[in-house]
Amino acid sequence: MIELTRRNLLSGTAAATAALSLGMPLAARASAPPVGRQNAGFYRYKVGDIEVTVVTDGSNTFKFADNHITNKSREELNKALEEAHQAKDLMTTPYNPIVVNTSGKLVVIDTGTGEAAYERSKGVTGQFQTNLKAAGIDRNAVDMVIISHFHGDHINGLITPDKKLAYPNAEILVPAGDWKFFMDDGEMSRATGDRMKTVFKGVRDVFDPIGRKVTPYEAGKELAPGITSVATPGHTPGHTSHVIASGNAKVYVQADVTHVPWVNARHPDWHVFYDQDGAVAEATRRKVYDMLVAERMLVQGFHYPFPSLAYVEKTGGGYRETMVPWNPSI
Amino acid sequence: MIELTRRNLLSGTAAATAALSLGMPLAARASAPPVGRQNAGFYRYKVGDIEVTVVTDGSNTFKFADNHITNKSREELNKALEEAHQAKDLMTTPYNPIVVNTSGKLVVIDTGTGEAAYERSKGVTGQFQTNLKAAGIDRNAVDMVIISHFHGDHINGLITPDKKLAYPNAEILVPAGDWKFFMDDGEMSRATGDRMKTVFKGVRDVFDPIGRKVTPYEAGKELAPGITSVATPGHTPGHTSHVIASGNAKVYVQADVTHVPWVNARHPDWHVFYDQDGAVAEATRRKVYDMLVAERMLVQGFHYPFPSLAYVEKTGGGYRETMVPWNPSI
Repeated sequence: MIELTRRNLLSGTAAATAALSLGMPLAARASAPPVGRQNAGFYRYKVGDIEVTVVTDGSNTFKFADNHITNKSREELNKALEEAHQAKDLMTTPYNPIVVNTSGKLVVIDTGTGEAAYERSKGVTGQFQTNLKAAGIDRNAVDMVIISHFHGDHINGLITPDKKLAYPNAEILVPAGDWKFFMDDGEMSRATGDRMKTVFKGVRDVFDPIGRKVTPYEAGKELAPGITSVATPGHTPGHTSHVIASGNAKVYVQADVTHVPWVNARHPDWHVFYDQDGAVAEATRRKVYDMLVAERMLVQGFHYPFPSLAYVEKTGGGYRETMVPWNPSI
Repeated sequence: MIELTRRNLLSGTAAATAALSLGMPLAARASAPPVGRQNAGFYRYKVGDIEVTVVTDGSNTFKFADNHITNKSREELNKALEEAHQAKDLMTTPYNPIVVNTSGKLVVIDTGTGEAAYERSKGVTGQFQTNLKAAGIDRNAVDMVIISHFHGDHINGLITPDKKLAYPNAEILVPAGDWKFFMDDGEMSRATGDRMKTVFKGVRDVFDPIGRKVTPYEAGKELAPGITSVATPGHTPGHTSHVIASGNAKVYVQADVTHVPWVNARHPDWHVFYDQDGAVAEATRRKVYDMLVAERMLVQGFHYPFPSLAYVEKTGGGYRETMVPWNPSI
């Protein structure tokens, strides 16, 4: 009686070989355990000569509050989620910063929730550094970090858990409008509501430990070769998007012009409570999305599902994304 | 004069440290070369207790022939491609087999274009074995290979370039209808047209070197725990899909019920020339997709863009996919 196990099958014994060629049952082989780990979260594509790497920071799912959409009810939001095949009462929010290699200059655009979030969330968020490494990029080689706006999921990754610079060799570019507003003690003292107080505190918690050493930038400037800033206010006063362009290729890096597309692109008139000025954010959103549709321009959306690269088209009530097919080569 | 290079920055010399803390320009650091490689092509998700790993074989882009859609013109196809933001006159076809770990039994469903295609295509297709390894799965641990139908992109990966078994320890399950039809010498002798002759020859080129040692299976059978076969004829006579079910979770593994969704799901009445019997394939497609919509069931599409997991909904003229957001955790 020959007992077939993975071990003796792989050892290539004559007995096992004979058993196999006789078509003996394989049931006695050791069974394979589930692997249980997800692929690394990075995706690479070219914009002309520029190499873009989308590096996910993870995706958070949470029970949303009644005022998640300030001008719509829970029922209306749940209906939109059902139409998008999302679970009821739960908001899934992906966080997707990118890294841009332009003429050998390494630029990170937005930084994710930070490494401290990794442990706190049991690895669900705060994945950026792990995925950056998997993508073959050394944080010490980053030349520039560009911040779109001053919310925690965009700035917290600027510092390490021990409050040192996460990118020790990088210049940190911040939108002048947010720098002015959020670092103003008068504005902070006038902040009402827990949400805004938390944002003001969070901004200082990031920038104070690094001595506020940043370079504020304006909209309409080329910040690095092929990376130009565009004013997209509303979500925050200084909220800024970025256009990456090389040759005939162009991608609109929208930051939070919309939150998750299945809510906020399909319903541009819905004001997510994160939008500091809902009406201005909506006007910006419509202007940007009408342009994306008219120009058939690619959009890279921070809160789009990884790898977050899409085209958008006009629908009856809003816009709908078409995710760009994953290219298994580059 | 201190010359700052990546080397001395990373060596931590006092000079470099001093220069950095003085805010000296970083321009003299070595510039980062583009990484130039794509992420490994696998994605993991759970269906109840079952672990599914989507393992891409790559994606092929080619100039399509005038009769690519046998009942529509090149112009109509190009219009559909434009609406889907795809390039004119080019067909991009992703190939996405899956691996299912069910109760410790490792099952591969369809095998891709084969390792021989890797070199031939310069790595654009034939990636399955590379990505399988990256996914942490040993080909020798595969217990069963289930084939949906007898086209080359589904069966060629059954054998290695030297025509040995690619999964030496696996039982090979083939759809009885295709086995009967394509292995019948009478049917082969009656085949007309280059396409059908090529398919017949291709089938023998795969199965003859492995001594035709396969197990034909019928529809409506549980082939492995939680994996049930479903008859979906038309694309080939014995074309078969598979339902993976565990607890309340269910995924419909459609194989080629549609080709790429932006052509064949959005336009279910369009007959791709790969469909051996266009009318039967269309009837199958409508039946399956109406069921997917009614049941709100997930579909795993071999020719959907990686990771190929979607919901579908009814539109005016057909169906439209909503890709399931990538989950960065598992």
